[in-house]
Order: sequence, then C-alpha cells, then structure tokens
Amino acid sequence: MKAGVVGANGYSGAELVRLLLNHPQVQLEMLIAHSAAGTEIQSIYPHLGGAISQTLETFDADELAARTDVVFFATPAGVSRNLLLECLKRGLICIDLSGDFRLKNPNDYAEWYQKEPADETLLHDAVYGLAEINKKQIENASFIANPGCYPTAALLGLAPVLKSGIIDLQSIIIDGKSGVSGSGKKAIIGNLFSEINESVRAYKLGTHQHTPEIEQTIAAISGELTAVTFTAHLIPMTRGLMCTIYAQLRQGFSTRELLAHYETFYARSPFVRIRPMGTWPATKEVLGSNFCDIGLNVDGRTRRLTIVSVIDNVVKGAAGQAIQNLNLIKGWDEQTGLVFTPIYP
Amino acid sequence: MKAGVVGANGYSGAELVRLLLNHPQVQLEMLIAHSAAGTEIQSIYPHLGGAISQTLETFDADELAARTDVVFFATPAGVSRNLLLECLKRGLICIDLSGDFRLKNPNDYAEWYQKEPADETLLHDAVYGLAEINKKQIENASFIANPGCYPTAALLGLAPVLKSGIIDLQSIIIDGKSGVSGSGKKAIIGNLFSEINESVRAYKLGTHQHTPEIEQTIAAISGELTAVTFTAHLIPMTRGLMCTIYAQLRQGFSTRELLAHYETFYARSPFVRIRPMGTWPATKEVLGSNFCDIGLNVDGRTRRLTIVSVIDNVVKGAAGQAIQNLNLIKGWDEQTGLVFTPIYP
Amino acid sequence: MKAGVVGANGYSGAELVRLLLNHPQVQLEMLIAHSAAGTEIQSIYPHLGGAISQTLETFDADELAARTDVVFFATPAGVSRNLLLECLKRGLICIDLSGDFRLKNPNDYAEWYQKEPADETLLHDAVYGLAEINKKQIENASFIANPGCYPTAALLGLAPVLKSGIIDLQSIIIDGKSGVSGSGKKAIIGNLFSEINESVRAYKLGTHQHTPEIEQTIAAISGELTAVTFTAHLIPMTRGLMCTIYAQLRQGFSTRELLAHYETFYARSPFVRIRPMGTWPATKEVLGSNFCDIGLNVDGRTRRLTIVSVIDNVVKGAAGQAIQNLNLIKGWDEQTGLVFTPIYP
Amino acid sequence: MKAGVVGANGYSGAELVRLLLNHPQVQLEMLIAHSAAGTEIQSIYPHLGGAISQTLETFDADELAARTDVVFFATPAGVSRNLLLECLKRGLICIDLSGDFRLKNPNDYAEWYQKEPADETLLHDAVYGLAEINKKQIENASFIANPGCYPTAALLGLAPVLKSGIIDLQSIIIDGKSGVSGSGKKAIIGNLFSEINESVRAYKLGTHQHTPEIEQTIAAISGELTAVTFTAHLIPMTRGLMCTIYAQLRQGFSTRELLAHYETFYARSPFVRIRPMGTWPATKEVLGSNFCDIGLNVDGRTRRLTIVSVIDNVVKGAAGQAIQNLNLIKGWDEQTGLVFTPIYP
Repeated sequence: MKAGVVGANGYSGAELVRLLLNHPQVQLEMLIAHSAAGTEIQSIYPHLGGAISQTLETFDADELAARTDVVFFATPAGVSRNLLLECLKRGLICIDLSGDFRLKNPNDYAEWYQKEPADETLLHDAVYGLAEINKKQIENASFIANPGCYPTAALLGLAPVLKSGIIDLQSIIIDGKSGVSGSGKKAIIGNLFSEINESVRAYKLGTHQHTPEIEQTIAAISGELTAVTFTAHLIPMTRGLMCTIYAQLRQGFSTRELLAHYETFYARSPFVRIRPMGTWPATKEVLGSNFCDIGLNVDGRTRRLTIVSVIDNVVKGAAGQAIQNLNLIKGWDEQTGLVFTPIYP
Repeated sequence: MKAGVVGANGYSGAELVRLLLNHPQVQLEMLIAHSAAGTEIQSIYPHLGGAISQTLETFDADELAARTDVVFFATPAGVSRNLLLECLKRGLICIDLSGDFRLKNPNDYAEWYQKEPADETLLHDAVYGLAEINKKQIENASFIANPGCYPTAALLGLAPVLKSGIIDLQSIIIDGKSGVSGSGKKAIIGNLFSEINESVRAYKLGTHQHTPEIEQTIAAISGELTAVTFTAHLIPMTRGLMCTIYAQLRQGFSTRELLAHYETFYARSPFVRIRPMGTWPATKEVLGSNFCDIGLNVDGRTRRLTIVSVIDNVVKGAAGQAIQNLNLIKGWDEQTGLVFTPIYP
Repeated sequence: MKAGVVGANGYSGAELVRLLLNHPQVQLEMLIAHSAAGTEIQSIYPHLGGAISQTLETFDADELAARTDVVFFATPAGVSRNLLLECLKRGLICIDLSGDFRLKNPNDYAEWYQKEPADETLLHDAVYGLAEINKKQIENASFIANPGCYPTAALLGLAPVLKSGIIDLQSIIIDGKSGVSGSGKKAIIGNLFSEINESVRAYKLGTHQHTPEIEQTIAAISGELTAVTFTAHLIPMTRGLMCTIYAQLRQGFSTRELLAHYETFYARSPFVRIRPMGTWPATKEVLGSNFCDIGLNVDGRTRRLTIVSVIDNVVKGAAGQAIQNLNLIKGWDEQTGLVFTPIYP
Repeated sequence: MKAGVVGANGYSGAELVRLLLNHPQVQLEMLIAHSAAGTEIQSIYPHLGGAISQTLETFDADELAARTDVVFFATPAGVSRNLLLECLKRGLICIDLSGDFRLKNPNDYAEWYQKEPADETLLHDAVYGLAEINKKQIENASFIANPGCYPTAALLGLAPVLKSGIIDLQSIIIDGKSGVSGSGKKAIIGNLFSEINESVRAYKLGTHQHTPEIEQTIAAISGELTAVTFTAHLIPMTRGLMCTIYAQLRQGFSTRELLAHYETFYARSPFVRIRPMGTWPATKEVLGSNFCDIGLNVDGRTRRLTIVSVIDNVVKGAAGQAIQNLNLIKGWDEQTGLVFTPIYP
C-alpha cells in the first residue's frame, strides 16, 4: 500500500514519516509540503537521515491518485477543507489530522475555529477516528477525521463512565496540560524556548476549539447533551499531554470498583493501560508510543472521581492514532507498525 | 533586628538568606543546619559567594535567644514541632515555614501528615500567616504558621469569592501544578532530573496534606465547612506554582464584574496583581518575586468560574511570605525588602 | 538622571527596564520600540506589572534629547549604526548593546556581520565597555560599545593570563555554551521550544561574529595578534552562558598559583568571583546577577590550562554590564543598582 | 537466544530491556537487581507495562548459566569486576557496560576510578567493544568491555583522523556535554532537577575516568601515546551527548576533503551519519536511536579542525552498542533489533 503525507514538514507530518517507515504494509510514496517543495526532507529533518531521501512536492490530486492509495493530511486548520474532497473524488482513503472535519455542525466550526466550515456533506461523511471507541464505524470508513490531542486523552479517560449514570455528566471538568509540540512548528513568540521554559501558562479559557469536539463525542456516547469546562495549559516539555478530569459520582463507587470497570472496558484495547490503585501515570511513561495510560481516584469525602489520562500528543494524539485508523480500515491488526515501547528516561 | 534561620541548607532556608540579605531592617546572625554544622554556607551555595561568609551552626535555643530576635524555621515536617517551643519560651518571634502548626485540629495533622501532632496549646497560639487575608491577627502575633505553597496560591485565588454566596462552596476543585523545588532539596529518585524532565506527573490524589489546610481556611473565611478536591502535579520546572481553580457560580456574574470585585478586594494588597480580561498569568511572570498574579474567566455555558493563580513557590509560597509576615509583626511596610521585579525571560 | 531605552520590547531591553527600575540614580523616561509603539510595556511584559506603566514610543532623537540624559540601544545588529549618531550629536550619553560599534576595523564588521559597517569615525570614538578591563577609558567616555555575551565571559576568563607570557596566545580555544535568550526574542524556527529542549546544538562554526571581537580585545590587552578557535553551542536553558577555555601554558604553573593570580587580578572587581581549587561554577549560580564566576584547572599531563567562566548572558552579558558602564561614566560606585544575589535554585 | 540483564533497575538496564524486547533473535529471560529482587519490573518502570511482566531476581551464576546464553552487566563501577568471572567460567557470553574491564593497565583503573582493579588476565581477555572500529576482534569475542558514553562519541569523531598524520595527536582537546541520565539513577543532590535545570556545570576537570579510556584507544589506533584534555559538562537534558573535538591539522586539508574522508571511512558503518558541509548535528537528532552523527569544520585561520559528534548516551553510549556487539559476536546483521528512527521533536 502506498501513502502520501500532506504537510510533511510539520511535526505531525514528520512523525507520520517516522511511523510509516516502520510500518510493514505501507510504503511512503509522496511527501507534500507546499512551502518547501523541492527540498529534501532530510535537510529539514536530519533525524530522518539514512532512512529516507525523498524530496518534498507540491499538492496535486491527480498525482496523488496515480501514485498513492491513502493520503494523510497533517495540515493546519482550514487547509484540508479545501484539498481533501479532490482526493476523495479520486477514490483515495483520506485521513485528516486537522480539526476541519471533526465537528458535525458547521456552525460549531465557524464559532470555535473562527473560520469558514467545510461543506456539510463532507462533514457528514467523515468518521470520527477515536479508535478505541468508534472501531466499527472506522472499519467501514474511507474518510477519517482524526481526533484532536486533548479530546483523545479526555475522551479515553471519560468513556467508561459516560454510560449507565455513573457520573453526573453536567459536572465534567477537564484540566489539560500539553507539551509545546501540540501547537505545531509555528515560528511565533509564544512558542519560543525562552517564553515556555521554566513556566506554566493557561490559555484560551472558555474558547479552546477542542471543547465542542469533546462535547459532541460525550453526547454521541452518552446520548445526553452536556457542556464541559475545559482549560488548556502549556507545560515546559516538547511531547506529552495529560488530562486531569473531575466528575461528580452519582453513586458511591470505590476506586477499586471503577478500576475494575476500566480494565473490563478496555480489555480489548491494547493501547490503553490502566494503572494499579494508588498510582497515576506520568506523560514520560508513554513518550514515543501510541499508549494512553489511565489512573483514577475516588475521593469519598466529596464523592468526586478524578481521572488522570496521558498520551504522547504527537503519537496517540496525532500520527499514531491516524495509522491505527488506517490499520482498522484495512482490517490489519490495529497495532501494526505501532509497537513502540516508550522511551524512558 | 537580628535573625536566625533553622534549616538554612534547604531551598527555603537558602532563599530566606537571599531575601534577608536584601532586607534593610534585618541582619542575618545565625544559620542553623544540623547535618552540615561547621560548613560555610558559601561552599554549599556558591551563588551566595561574596554576599555572606557565615558558617552553619547547630540548633541551640539559648544561643538563639542570646544572639537573635526572630527565628525562621525552614525545616521538614516534624522538626519544628519539637524545637520551636524552646524559642517561644525565650521570647523570640518564631515564624515556622513547615506544616507543623498550620492545622488547628491535631487529628488532622495526624491523619494527613501521618506524624504525631504538636501540642494543642501551641497549635492554638500559632497565627496562620496568609498575609493578605489575616493581616490584623498577624500584626499582633509573635508566632506564625507560614502557609503552604499550594494553599497560598489557592486561597488568594479563592478569597474574594468565599463570602456573600458568590460560589457554591461545595463545588470547589483545585488543580495544582508545581515546580520541583516545592518538594525541597531531598535526594530521592522522584526528584531526579531524569525522572522529572519532559514529563508531568499527578501525585498524592486524595491524600495531599495541603488539602485540610485549604479547607480550614475556607471555613475560617466563609464560616462554612466544605471539602475540596485538590490534585497536585509535578511540572518540569524548578520554581513556580499555579492553581487552576474551578467553582460553580450561584448567580450569573460576568468575567468583568468578578475582575472588578477582585481589583477592589486586593486594592490594598501590593503583592496581588489582577490580570486584564482575556489574559491569564504564567508562573514565569512572578519568578523570583513575592507577587501572586490572578486571572479569571466565567464560562456562561456552564455557569462555572475558572481562576488561575500563580506564585513563585519559594518566595510567596515560602520565604517571601515569611518575611512579609515579619514586616507585619514589626509594623514595617509589608513590602520592605521584598521589592523584586520578576526575572523575565 | 533620566534614561531612554531603544528596543525596549526585546529581552535585553526588558532587562534594562527591570534593572533600571532598581537603580537609585536613574529614572526611566522613554521606552522606544518602533514595531510596538503605542502599546503599554506591561501588556507585552506582564512581569513588569505594578512597577511601571509606560507606553512604548517611536524613535525621535529630538524627543530623546529633550527628555533624557542617557540612551541605551538594545537593538539588533544594523539598527543603532543608523540612529546613534543623532543622539551623540545632541549630547546624550550613548550605550550600545549591539555589535555595531565593537569592531574597530570596518572590514571586520562587513566580513563577520555581513552588513554595512558604521562610519569609521564613530567606530573610533566608541569605547569598548568591558568594565573590569577598560575601566579608565570608560570613566572618560560618553559612547560605549557594550561587549557581546560570549566575549564578556571569554575575555574575563582569559584576561589574567594574556600578559607576561603565561600562555601561548596562538593556542586559545573557546568552547561557548549559551542559553537561548542570547539570540533574542526572534520568532524563528530555530528558537522554538520544541527545537531546543532536550538537545544541544553547535552553530556558526568558524563564522560566529563574536570571534573578531574576542581577537581584537586579546590583541589590545596582550599586544599580540592572534586567531582563536571559538565554537558556540545552544543549550536548553533560557539564561546563562559558559565559556570553557583551553590554552597551552608556557611554564609549569600550578592550579593553585594561577588561582592566586586570578584573585589578585580581580581583587578590585566586585562582580568577578574566583572559585576555590577543585570546584568550577555552574551558570545557575549567577542567574539574575551581574557576577562573572571563574574556576580553573591546570592539567600537568598536557601542560594545558582549562578556564571555566560563567555569566548571566542577559545581565553581565548585556543589560547589567551596560548599567555598570553608566555607573563608571558617572563616577558612581560600579555596583549601584546591580547588587542582586543570584536566584537559586 | 536467551539473555539476562544484571542491574535491570538502572537506566542502562531498563534501556537494554526496551531494546531487547524489540530484538527478533533474543528473548529476555532473567532480570537481575539485587536491591529490588522480588519486585515486578513494571512497578518500577510503568513504561514497560504490557510489554513484559517479569520479576527482578538476585544474581546467581548457576541460574544464569542454566537459563541464559548471554549476560549484560549494567552495573555501577566495581560490581561486575566481582561477578562476571563466574559467568565466563560457565560459558556465557558476557557484555559489560561498566568501566571495570575497559582499561588494559590495572594501574590506570586504580588511579582514575579510585577502586581496586579487576584481575589482569580478565582485563587482557576483554575486547573493547567500540563496534565501528574493533569489528573483527568483536566478531571473535565472547567477553566485551562496552565503551563509555563520552569515549564512544569522542573516538568515533576522531577515528578517521588518527592515522596518516592528519592531525597533531598531542593537540587533541575534547569538550564533552552530556545529559544527566549519563550519571545513572542515583539519588544524589547533584542529579536533582532543581540543581540541573536552567544550568550548565563542568565537572571532574582533569580527573574524569573516561580520559584514560580515550587515550588508550587513540594509542591503539594510531600507535602513538598521547595525553588528551577532556572536560565533561552536565547539560539540562535527560538523554544526549555531544563531544566537540579540537585538533591541530598537520596539513592544509579543507572541510570538504575531510568530509569526503569521513564518508569513505564510515561507508560500511550504518550507524554513523556524516553531516553535509556547513551543518552540524544536534543531540536531539539521534534521540532514542543507535546513530552517531558527525559534522566538522576546518578553520583556515588557525589550521584547526573542529569535530562535532553526537549520540544518545543511553543507546549508542550504552545499551544500543552493547546489543550491536552481541549482533557482531553472533554474526547477525549489526543493525538487528536496532533500527529505530530518532524521535523528533
């Protein structure tokens, strides 16, 4: 199977390259980067030296159709909206890592992204690629809206308690903490080392575009509309994302009972690991891997559940989950090409 | 005025030295460190070179009484409980930076610190040194229990909304993020660079000893008993502490109204700075200073208030507030010796 | 005395503001930043909140002459070359923190900066502001070319051995390691957190513009022309700069003898601290201060001297030394406004 | 083939586990850690969760002989000296990652390690496992002294110019910069996050135990005895090691000529990558991989060569090279199980 990556000079694009080089069923055929076309990928990313020697190309849907079977879009918001349809028309499998096709309601996109939404039919056709939760739909799809990094960690942390009235859905609060790679390879002051190092910053309170994505999926799973409070924080690290999630329990479950419930819920999800009672994951413990590690605690004094969910934002929060989705579409084992032990320390 | 510092070889102790060297009314007379007695402080902390050339001594209450007027205890939990009474008896002003005298109920200490509590009379005599809130009591005190780092940021963030039914006190959730210096100069695996760097970790869920300290002060301010959910996180930075605080509003206040309320509430508190609407503080913006910077946001969709409060945990969260308390006790301007502009970047 | 800062929105400019706010003889009058004129400095640098509330202005030499006595230029290479003459003409003291006036030979500037040099008369008039070495000239100057960060650490480390044939001047190798703030507040990919964190990079081998500045000063001190090898490295930290300097000894001096020589050489230099035998400074031990700490070691096996010299690149390597130069010009104690104990940890 | 790892709870040990889990020819059979025997490796290293569920055992040579074919010693200096002989006697392949068997002259070990050396016969039998240089000897060996991290980077950087009189061997200066994981998982103050972060420190000037290891190998390659100057620095990063190497050229080679020479020299070394002229590697560009990336520059003004050589100290500088050595011993492709693309960013 041959693949193309649009936006190959960004961090998610480069990570797709790293991961696909390791995939036994996929061959990297086209690397597309408008602004750097004609440049060898190695000269931008010397870490890829020896493994690949391709030259970045410009976007051309006919060329993609002629040379590839699947196209990954690792582009900023507002780009794939315009390009992806051309690939779909030509019969290509399309996996979009941006936010352009995640929100079913175009008004939500317009409001939260402050950009013009994609065509409503396309939004309808896109399957939300939260692999552990939407497995069946993904297996039958050819067009995937790959989830955002915060929603992936938040929703995998929440999914087991969204049904059966375990928690009060109106009480959900998500405190997100992300490494800086999550905001991409953008030369802006806010991403400079001197601004980020030795500091924590909260940003976009009440307006972060991942909020409606989380709410839409909570509604899809639980059948109940809800508004969540979500706060994003920039942490002085490159990779890694944690969501600390708070919710009010409706009944007096114990930590032990809920851990058992999570173990069962994710028994067939090789990328989700549940931590033993009294321990909680650190982001470093999933670095470079497609794992999502989850720990939790019930506070009997407040009858509140706290869930700690961590991922590598560039892998499970972007490129890794995209490949997991391709595996599901093609009927391959979902771990194909993704068996990386995290790098520690 | 002459001062002694017990625990001068720890991080809070060394910071007391740095700050007191800059204090126009105080002279550093005795530096006490049991395990390093006989060593010059400079050889342990070369950054102090040129500014001071004292030798660390052992604890001796008579010696302290003979040579000093005020004693700061920057010792681990369980130490000052045994030593401080001897200094009080000899008429010394005592400012304790540990948790030994913060909790009025000895059972709370026994439960949350898992150690034997101090004598109940002593607990009763100690004045909780949250300078902006307890100013009057502190001015008449000679024995201060200096607040913990998380409680300082959390309580300064919450204080303006604890009265008048603005928020539902039972809904308070505090998500704390701290630099590693907060856990002191302890040679343990968990504090190693290789364990902390490029990672975030949640710890002590449901059992952190700062929880009852926060609850006790909320009760003291509001007159209402409450249990809060508090989660502590270790961030890959040395200094800096943020509390992101969530609470349900009882009425439909706007962000603008609450910001105005905070401005009024802290109008006479030179160390508290309120951020303009739509902006929130980063910990780096208070580095090296005694400031507590606060920003907030009301989410109309959930009627929830989010407060972001940051301090330098070693200054406002420890040594700086201790000196602020001394200033109040002595009737000096509370900023004396504490006018440091944060270091940026 | 009233001061203006041109380039007040860069890192060196902001540090000048922090330091001048603490200077008892100087009042900050004009903050100039072409690209951000009309903006309050606080909204760009919230850490300055409460301390200052000025608005950034555009450059106007008449205005500067009317309102100020001294102007600091904290501008990128190529800017002050065009502006500074206008201020000199109007009788203002000018202290330039850029590289525009450091090299006496305009051809050197053209070659190493790849820009058009300043007028040769101006180059001749500028006094090189390496405060510990050029004290007398500085005291009589009104136009200072403030040294670069690498040259400051390298030259203070080397100065004591440049005379009397102690070392072979042709053997000098300088391995420099700098925090990222040294490259300023520039939104470029190479300065992004994700590129710098968890990495070390060597850059500009054989072409770094600080090379001729070091060589020119070595020649001025020693009377001998020499070419040095200088390599710059980017370290994942914000502030701090170390030069590890290697040179061949001409005679069999011991570490102890050379340390004594350094102590004597810098006996009247309050900002230079010499480390005891067998210890060497870390950059953190001068953070936020104007100190330059120096340690050294003689390797008898190779008859080679290794010198380790550290500074805070934003203070002693830029804004702090600029103020030290102003102090010297005005005949004030050179430590005026610069007595900061480093922040540790 | 079955493997045992002694010292499996240290960082090099844990990395051996990560890498061997990925090796198609090797099965991990025994994990040995004296101080943690009886504990599951997962509970110490949660990143290994799901991949392995073994329990740490105590050292027992008979047990190792019964259950394994190769034993890796990832133990501190002074440990394998006492244990390894028992394994050799029982016919096991032994690969020692410590410094105990690297120095042929026992007096050197006594002097630089300040410990009692191993038996001289054992020292004689050990083959120095610098894989790219000693390939033939390694292929015929069953007992490997795996090189130190600094020597690996330094010697791979130097090897191509050690013969044929290209450089003056007496002029070699090596400025090493290492991440903190290089000093292992030791709970000492000097390795704490708060001590390392935002700082660079030089250490062990003139006394670092890797110095004689480098000199011994230079002599072995060049046939000439020499003393080098080597300075080690701690950098605020977890993984990664750079050596910046300086040497005087004997003839007027150009950068281009030397790069071509390096390309030829390493043409059959898949783990060494030579950087194009005008670019030099960053440590991050080899993170998590077994690569050694090398760039260089000739300064015509000083006729000096500067070489920049980077590795991941835990992989090529320890566990990865150990496995590369096993591959060579067994006649497998030397890349077996080691084809990891570096993780970037």
